[in-house]
Amino acid sequence: MQTQQTALNGTVSTRRMLLDRAPDGDLTTGHFRMSTDVLAQPADGEVLTRTLYLSVDPVMRKIMTNRTSEPNGLNGVFGLGAGDPMRGRTVGVVEVSNDPKFSAGDFVLGWGGWQDFAIEKASALVAVAPVAGQPLSVHLGPLGRPGITAWLGIVLTAKVEASDTVLVSSAAGAVGSVAGQLAKSRGARVVGIAGGAEKCEWLVSTLGFDAAVDYKSADFLQQLEEATPDGVSVIHENVGGAVLDAGLGRMSAEGRIALCGLLDGYQAGIGEAFAYKNFGLLLDRGLTLTGFRIDELTGHHQQALVELRGSLESGSIVTTETVTEGLENAPDALVGLLAGKGSGKHLVKVDDSFDR
Amino acid sequence: MQTQQTALNGTVSTRRMLLDRAPDGDLTTGHFRMSTDVLAQPADGEVLTRTLYLSVDPVMRKIMTNRTSEPNGLNGVFGLGAGDPMRGRTVGVVEVSNDPKFSAGDFVLGWGGWQDFAIEKASALVAVAPVAGQPLSVHLGPLGRPGITAWLGIVLTAKVEASDTVLVSSAAGAVGSVAGQLAKSRGARVVGIAGGAEKCEWLVSTLGFDAAVDYKSADFLQQLEEATPDGVSVIHENVGGAVLDAGLGRMSAEGRIALCGLLDGYQAGIGEAFAYKNFGLLLDRGLTLTGFRIDELTGHHQQALVELRGSLESGSIVTTETVTEGLENAPDALVGLLAGKGSGKHLVKVDDSFDR
Repeated sequence: MQTQQTALNGTVSTRRMLLDRAPDGDLTTGHFRMSTDVLAQPADGEVLTRTLYLSVDPVMRKIMTNRTSEPNGLNGVFGLGAGDPMRGRTVGVVEVSNDPKFSAGDFVLGWGGWQDFAIEKASALVAVAPVAGQPLSVHLGPLGRPGITAWLGIVLTAKVEASDTVLVSSAAGAVGSVAGQLAKSRGARVVGIAGGAEKCEWLVSTLGFDAAVDYKSADFLQQLEEATPDGVSVIHENVGGAVLDAGLGRMSAEGRIALCGLLDGYQAGIGEAFAYKNFGLLLDRGLTLTGFRIDELTGHHQQALVELRGSLESGSIVTTETVTEGLENAPDALVGLLAGKGSGKHLVKVDDSFDR
Repeated sequence: MQTQQTALNGTVSTRRMLLDRAPDGDLTTGHFRMSTDVLAQPADGEVLTRTLYLSVDPVMRKIMTNRTSEPNGLNGVFGLGAGDPMRGRTVGVVEVSNDPKFSAGDFVLGWGGWQDFAIEKASALVAVAPVAGQPLSVHLGPLGRPGITAWLGIVLTAKVEASDTVLVSSAAGAVGSVAGQLAKSRGARVVGIAGGAEKCEWLVSTLGFDAAVDYKSADFLQQLEEATPDGVSVIHENVGGAVLDAGLGRMSAEGRIALCGLLDGYQAGIGEAFAYKNFGLLLDRGLTLTGFRIDELTGHHQQALVELRGSLESGSIVTTETVTEGLENAPDALVGLLAGKGSGKHLVKVDDSFDR
């Protein structure tokens, strides 16, 4: 890790990771390049932050694709073009504040992007407090967008109860790992779908899932059937495509599908629509599928955070992270995430000054 | 029409239309054949009925296909094999009753199937009363399964309000024509999708739809866009495939889709899954899609019938029928329905003794 030691008097120099060209298919590290730029001092209402952690998210792939899309969340309005600095959520520390709400030394959750330092509007920052026994990066994981998304799916949308059998796709991921644990804490039977025997074993032994099935395995459908002998009443869906199709095939009558992501489509682009063989079961089994968007449900975020923080403190939710060190390695982190490497919340540690 | 004048003393001879062989693709009249059989006298708890009207329904095509399906409604448990008499709902009159609940001359809604006379279990029959100004066949249309299905979609599932723009597919059909009128009576803007300019004109001029678009037209998508300048907040879906995909593309954020039929799939069979280009909008726009099944929602039928009967009596719902005369022409009626001919509720008038 090359932590930046830039002098903060006068101008500030920052490294920035740019999207060099938009990918057309699989993303590689060759789609990025680093630049170094000089930042101005923060204007009135602005804050200079030092980046500590970058969030690495599947949806970053989606915003690189030049598609007609909705102006919501990371999609659309935050779309990236060639040469743009990579955007993304960050946990940082305030270096210089030109706003009365923040002081130097405050920890903040923001949208600093892939750079060592960022000028951010104070109005877009949220002060975050360290949580006992947890790294600061927990505000990008279980207490950040992934955790809130999991809560919105399991609690608000699917209203999971103890009598449910809940199928969680991308279960070893940042959202799925929390979703499964939230469902377990409600007493439901929880079955995860993940890639590879190692992740499946980890879901059961470390996160307490009742079963996990490997979508990369040749006998995936048979594994899924064996893991859900009484069918599935709830799907928390993050993947779409063949994984969702398999899940649909296991749904019980009147089942609920909380749709929070379609990872499969992010790499493939919107051009290649998936033909769901089991689409008709939505009708035949009287299912309800609800797409939900974290940015449209902000009225519920506070309730989600209260439960998530309590669950972390009580240990009913375990934080799991895959951390890559150094801004220069951020492209590797994203490419690895999209290739299914690692588990839990994927992060880049940009600066370890505040490690404890 | 060859109305049967079979003597009712001793045995009863009835014509029966059989499914001669299961279709593999488009249904033709060649898939049927007529037989004549002798019926026994009704046993205890049974009733001999004379068929007045047969219901002709798109789902009849579905139950002819040898597919793995759910044991609900007309599907699955009622599946048809080669040589089986065609099943279906009927309005009939009791000729001989061997059950205290019914007397000769009572009008009943039953499952008599495609035959002149039927032996039916009294427990499976519902007494129906003539409605002023309406033919008896109204109990197969707006006061039968199609009307109840429309109500379950518009009122129970989508909860349509005056602020909604409601898109109704198969709008000139038995379900769609009632669904659109129910939505209109709630003050919503209603746009129908139908096949051909004539049906579209009829939806607007006779049924009072605000607009109608022709899915067979080369500029269907443009027509749909022009008819829904502010988007669509509710879809009552009966068709699926390209028609649903087009509707999804017009959905506003947080829109609701009440899925009550997938006619497109009935002819094609389950093997050819449709690739929805706009599936991702379920996520991006936070949509909710609910499949619903009339036979699983029987607790709501009475409420539906009360409103539907009142709407018929007040004239806020107009009954529309396509009537084919004669049991021998029932295959023509079904083939025509599946080919998109006619509008409203499709019926076969088997016996005109009670015409008024």
